[in-house]
Amino acid sequence: MSWFTSSAAFEAALGHLPMADADAIAAAGARQASLTKPAGSLGRLEEIAVFLAGWQGTPQPVIEQGRAAIFAGNHGFVVHGVSAFPASVTAAMVGNFSAGGAAINALATAAGLDLEVVALDLDRPTADFTIAPAMDEAECLSALSAGAAVVKPGLDLLVVGEMGIGNSTAAAALCARSYGGTPAQWVGPGTGVDAEGIARKVAVVERALAFHDAAPRTPFETLRRLGGREIAAIAGAVLEARRQRVPVVLDGFISCSAIAPLAIAAPAITDHCLAGHCSAEPGHIRLLGHLDLDPLLSLGMRLGEGSGAAVAMSVIRAALATHNGMATFAEAGVADSL
Amino acid sequence: MSWFTSSAAFEAALGHLPMADADAIAAAGARQASLTKPAGSLGRLEEIAVFLAGWQGTPQPVIEQGRAAIFAGNHGFVVHGVSAFPASVTAAMVGNFSAGGAAINALATAAGLDLEVVALDLDRPTADFTIAPAMDEAECLSALSAGAAVVKPGLDLLVVGEMGIGNSTAAAALCARSYGGTPAQWVGPGTGVDAEGIARKVAVVERALAFHDAAPRTPFETLRRLGGREIAAIAGAVLEARRQRVPVVLDGFISCSAIAPLAIAAPAITDHCLAGHCSAEPGHIRLLGHLDLDPLLSLGMRLGEGSGAAVAMSVIRAALATHNGMATFAEAGVADSL
Repeated sequence: MSWFTSSAAFEAALGHLPMADADAIAAAGARQASLTKPAGSLGRLEEIAVFLAGWQGTPQPVIEQGRAAIFAGNHGFVVHGVSAFPASVTAAMVGNFSAGGAAINALATAAGLDLEVVALDLDRPTADFTIAPAMDEAECLSALSAGAAVVKPGLDLLVVGEMGIGNSTAAAALCARSYGGTPAQWVGPGTGVDAEGIARKVAVVERALAFHDAAPRTPFETLRRLGGREIAAIAGAVLEARRQRVPVVLDGFISCSAIAPLAIAAPAITDHCLAGHCSAEPGHIRLLGHLDLDPLLSLGMRLGEGSGAAVAMSVIRAALATHNGMATFAEAGVADSL
Repeated sequence: MSWFTSSAAFEAALGHLPMADADAIAAAGARQASLTKPAGSLGRLEEIAVFLAGWQGTPQPVIEQGRAAIFAGNHGFVVHGVSAFPASVTAAMVGNFSAGGAAINALATAAGLDLEVVALDLDRPTADFTIAPAMDEAECLSALSAGAAVVKPGLDLLVVGEMGIGNSTAAAALCARSYGGTPAQWVGPGTGVDAEGIARKVAVVERALAFHDAAPRTPFETLRRLGGREIAAIAGAVLEARRQRVPVVLDGFISCSAIAPLAIAAPAITDHCLAGHCSAEPGHIRLLGHLDLDPLLSLGMRLGEGSGAAVAMSVIRAALATHNGMATFAEAGVADSL
């Protein structure tokens, strides 16, 4: 969106986050209390329905125009051997997304989401962040805007996901910079490196943190120095979704890491977000704790592509099916002492 | 089914449990390894697909004829004040199921399951198990057979659930009798009793355990003495499903308690079962540990009616969507080094 014209505009948007609709929340809560079940007995399904009501601004929210936006980018630091796969796999998997053969294709269809894949300059990796900022300001603003652009008017829910060989290393760097802790506490096997690969990832994160240590610790600077195009795009999508009060379902470690620099400055940035799942990547549960997000699923998934969030969509749809589809005590003629 | 003609026939069936199809498991595992994702990156989705392959006996399982069977029964011990609700609510909720207004109606529809509600002699509660066996032999066999009858030929998956005011007390008694521990370790608030109500439940379970202490500890005797019609029906459904190699998704504490007496004698009874969720009822997680079942969801639900298992169906459908819908490395032209 054209309003990500400067780092100042980005930071200003982060400083003026709209809130959920309190009237819709109250009305949805009253509806829950009137449905034929003991109060609270549907657990998180009830919370999800009320959450969606607040952000959609209606007592009976629906998901008729839900979108999964998957952002892809390549990273300069992969020359240091941080991934089990060559960078060419990013483009190959984007091809697989286009052909309909990837996990996210099957899962988005099952979840009733349309799928938008945004490949961000795959033939132009970011700079190696151990010796330079990953992106210059214009590159980072462009990525933020590409993310924001997926939030079309009328959207009622957004799933964000990513694809980018090496990007669990960028995610670890963003988390360590945002929340402290040693790089080893944030680095994991990603798609499957061994102990030596993990050691290389830790070393790369250590060097990156040291190189950028004296830089300003603003959300924008952290994103552009230690992030990547697909990660900045997720940050832009989440922020634009908030501006339009569109609820967001976050995917795994890398998707959530995009929010970490924003959450440090504006903890309320996660208010319109659900954590779709807790990934098998060990840093994710730690990150979710910092973000104060309780994941809907914990199925040992570690694929990315928005796959965990897409599976979580079915829980969200179950929440709406009960919220909108159940009879009230009055309708059913069941004693409302239930 | 007519083969539950005696307690001996029931125990004999439990002693001859068919196993999953090893060839189908191997073929499904090979298919998983060929799909365009790092091996294992879909976590439990991969396990679920292979599990269903084994029980359906095909490398590419499907759920085209899935059924949710909800059994309802009433309990004599409710005269001791163990529930927040009068026994009449059991029949009222069965009416709500028939009218389509309950949570399970909305969730079964969302999950693509047909719904069969089996009300078992609601106007004839079981005997008060603190002073007599809950059921005589004929009554228990009849309930087992009613459960088995829902497993029609051609069914490719069965969800089991229950409705019965007071039945979390029967579930606690079954668990304490099967696995030991104090009644207080198995009793919880159910649909919402307070501390005094919990104390009454504990006392009722203590008296029931003492009354039946000297009785034979066979699966059949435990079920008929401490169970209820809806609970015995679930045991019958699970056992008949096993006989026909139909995979089962268990619901919450009460549904799982039906299997406890069977699992003591034949631990493999859970091999064809998935635990749909972990309920908020505190005994459930303990029971799942004894049954060696890892729940798919943990959403703080505590409604029964098969509701948690029905929500879990969407995870199971996601597993099949990826297993059957993704491209192989060969099809996608992605390097199979991924």
